Amino acid sequence: MRVLGIDPGLRNLGWGVIEVAGSRLSHVANGIIRSEGKELAVRLLSLHAALAEIVALHRPDAAAVEQTFVNKDGAGTLKLGQARGIALLVPAQAGLSVGEYAPNAVKKAVVGVGHADKAQIAHMVRHQLPGVALAGPDAADALAIAICHAHYLQSAGRLAAAIRGAA
Amino acid sequence: MRVLGIDPGLRNLGWGVIEVAGSRLSHVANGIIRSEGKELAVRLLSLHAALAEIVALHRPDAAAVEQTFVNKDGAGTLKLGQARGIALLVPAQAGLSVGEYAPNAVKKAVVGVGHADKAQIAHMVRHQLPGVALAGPDAADALAIAICHAHYLQSAGRLAAAIRGAA
Repeated sequence: MRVLGIDPGLRNLGWGVIEVAGSRLSHVANGIIRSEGKELAVRLLSLHAALAEIVALHRPDAAAVEQTFVNKDGAGTLKLGQARGIALLVPAQAGLSVGEYAPNAVKKAVVGVGHADKAQIAHMVRHQLPGVALAGPDAADALAIAICHAHYLQSAGRLAAAIRGAA
Repeated sequence: MRVLGIDPGLRNLGWGVIEVAGSRLSHVANGIIRSEGKELAVRLLSLHAALAEIVALHRPDAAAVEQTFVNKDGAGTLKLGQARGIALLVPAQAGLSVGEYAPNAVKKAVVGVGHADKAQIAHMVRHQLPGVALAGPDAADALAIAICHAHYLQSAGRLAAAIRGAA
């Protein structure tokens, strides 16, 4: 089964796909979708198209999106929310259920502690997915989210249920 | 030419379509899309499907979305952002350019002052679109956004350009 992780952002959206076979994880692909330009609707449109292409190409069976917001800055949080709306929509349009994880839960699942920094996350992602070439910090975060969701699915027999659901 | 206005929200998304003929405005349709349930991705999916249906049915030539955020509450702003992402995406997917207006600009265009309350907005929307039956305050706001965008397009010959663009 394949799991897609997404670290949403309007300027840089990180994505990563991993393969889960029993307790074994392996890397499939990762990258960063960049959206620039003036008109917000056009940026969201290009984000949607690029993410839909990744889903069509890599055919994940499950997806998860990081749940984060910037409390200090309303405009920044709104921007993030808009990108996050697209990040949740695309896998749902492909019929996938979409998990959501707070950053601390992702860090705890991948590094073992809830306060890990970006370098520690990248290090542990490389350790858990041998041979992976990371497209950047946002792509490392996206793979960490996919790993976190894989752990969740592996626990308590949810993986078998998810595979039956995806078959 | 037809203008679609959207007042985005995750629980209640207001929408309204008006017809613009020279300086004359008339009401076409308005309503509220409600999304409830547990999984956020599923709510955004239903929002997207409902809004896409409205665009397919009423075939607007231009669209505008209210630009607002709640600075005090990061979680609330993130939710609004996610719904707003869908509100911007759907008209863009239909090939429309999407205007954005701050609430004060909408109030000023419709009521004449930037600090009007919901009752004043509904009153002026009823005055400018005779015979309209409002589905609720969010639908009234959406029609106000459409009226604001129509005024913008009417000024400085932008209407003719938009109609040429839409033809």
